[in-house]
Amino acid sequence: MENLKCKIQMPIPKSKAQNPKSKIAPAPLLVVGAVAFDSVRTPYGEAENILGGAATYLAVTASWFAPVRIVAVVGEDLGEEHIRVFQDRGIDTAGLVRAPGKTFRWSGEYAGDMNEARTLETQLNVFEQFSPTLPSSYLDSEFVFLGNIDPVLQLHVRRQLPQARLTGLDSMNYWIKGKPEELKKALAEVDILVINETEARMLSGISNLKKAAEVLRKMGPRSLVIKRGEHGVALFSEGGVFFAPAFPLDEVHDPTGAGDSFAGGFMGYLAKAGELSEGHLRRAVIYGSVMASFAVEEFGLSRLLRLTRREIESRFRGFKTLTHFDV
Amino acid sequence: MENLKCKIQMPIPKSKAQNPKSKIAPAPLLVVGAVAFDSVRTPYGEAENILGGAATYLAVTASWFAPVRIVAVVGEDLGEEHIRVFQDRGIDTAGLVRAPGKTFRWSGEYAGDMNEARTLETQLNVFEQFSPTLPSSYLDSEFVFLGNIDPVLQLHVRRQLPQARLTGLDSMNYWIKGKPEELKKALAEVDILVINETEARMLSGISNLKKAAEVLRKMGPRSLVIKRGEHGVALFSEGGVFFAPAFPLDEVHDPTGAGDSFAGGFMGYLAKAGELSEGHLRRAVIYGSVMASFAVEEFGLSRLLRLTRREIESRFRGFKTLTHFDV
Repeated sequence: MENLKCKIQMPIPKSKAQNPKSKIAPAPLLVVGAVAFDSVRTPYGEAENILGGAATYLAVTASWFAPVRIVAVVGEDLGEEHIRVFQDRGIDTAGLVRAPGKTFRWSGEYAGDMNEARTLETQLNVFEQFSPTLPSSYLDSEFVFLGNIDPVLQLHVRRQLPQARLTGLDSMNYWIKGKPEELKKALAEVDILVINETEARMLSGISNLKKAAEVLRKMGPRSLVIKRGEHGVALFSEGGVFFAPAFPLDEVHDPTGAGDSFAGGFMGYLAKAGELSEGHLRRAVIYGSVMASFAVEEFGLSRLLRLTRREIESRFRGFKTLTHFDV
Repeated sequence: MENLKCKIQMPIPKSKAQNPKSKIAPAPLLVVGAVAFDSVRTPYGEAENILGGAATYLAVTASWFAPVRIVAVVGEDLGEEHIRVFQDRGIDTAGLVRAPGKTFRWSGEYAGDMNEARTLETQLNVFEQFSPTLPSSYLDSEFVFLGNIDPVLQLHVRRQLPQARLTGLDSMNYWIKGKPEELKKALAEVDILVINETEARMLSGISNLKKAAEVLRKMGPRSLVIKRGEHGVALFSEGGVFFAPAFPLDEVHDPTGAGDSFAGGFMGYLAKAGELSEGHLRRAVIYGSVMASFAVEEFGLSRLLRLTRREIESRFRGFKTLTHFDV
């Protein structure tokens, strides 16, 4: 790993991340993406320089279901109190490396229906030089989620993991437009694509969602999850099509991290389940939706960090009530 | 009824509209709205001067579930072949009146994701003088759907029906902006509001859908159905919130009439069920979604007129598969 000062080594607290109900320990999930400081303004208030980034939301939400290994770069300004956020959730930080300079920073605001952020500023900082060589302790990872970063880096990480059984990938319009060929190469080597509705249409070039899904699945991933914001999620897989609504909330205080929290809950549950059956996939979509619904209730990680298992399971059952009807 | 030449009297064929499975005959559903000639252009082709209008789609789709009584005005240009469309579905046309002049005409086109029509031309024609006095044979109607017309007319119809047990109402941005007080008066006298997502936000003045639903339900209707186009339908009622997806189709040839077909299936099923329990409401939402999904498969009424009971029931079960997961 070039340009890096030191690796952050932390003891991994046992059992925090594990589900007391499961008989065998779930396989670890490796997540890669940005760790960032976010400044966010919404109609409900604002927050400055709070811990965020795709890898952060992915790791924190997935840690409710399986042990998590994080891969990201941080600057000298990331303090012990931030590292402790990961540590307290039992997240393995062997792949969290510190580089000279400042941590990635993003600021944005949400208005109106808050379905889309308006980015005010992006400072890549240490992220500009990010090209992770994984710690040897990560190389046996079987479950992997490649958060929304340069597809060249996504592929670079994927290729260091010969034992990966299930790899998910997120991307965005920036890479679809800027690096379409690289993204297609990465897509050819993953099992699940998690992507926004608009971006699904952009990447496939097709407006009809069902046809777009067929085209995207032919690019590599056998399962496709299309995130539709307040309209929920659509899953296209070998088992057919599955729709989940978004949980109806009285107030969405901060949508930042909703998509990554979805992906964290989704992939964390699949790592815990250990396989990609249709039943597991559908429940994973619901657990992902549960985690996203909690994420947006407060600014940043606040709500996610004081969740309880009981709250998660209760909202999971709430989703059943939202869609159930008798034939 | 002023300015009307004659009422169109037709024998009502028996049994066509009735469900062979039900033990007692369903109560008739009265629907009011426009009968129109539509000219439509979509990426899949175009059609000129085909039979359409809210009342037409409402009546034809509802007729699969319950006997239907239609209230609308038509011009001298509406031929026997058009009347026969209603007659063949067992629809009572005692409230279909012919006035001097031309039938209401609408032309529009759909592009891109086809979620919204661009209106090219509207000719009100005979509709301008529409102020229906209901035939005496309609006055015992217990189930009523007030299609999207002037709220003054909606209330005028509602007040002629003292025995109405369950009244649904549809509206649109045009009336929300143009006749908000009249619309609120009509809303105070109905049980169910069926409305588009954007219009729900406009009418309530609230962006958050759950809060918007609370405000709208306080205006009168105890149940609220929010139509979200390709994102399905949300039902807000005493029993909580229920979400149904839109059926994923390979091709949407013509979205015209989707909302009215939804409402027709929805209200038709409720008339058949005879009561407003949560279970019936949810199944009604699904049957409405089934009818809307068929409506858009072809231009105008084509698909709806060659449906079979088996196709309807099969797609109903398909909706179960689309949303089912095991807890």
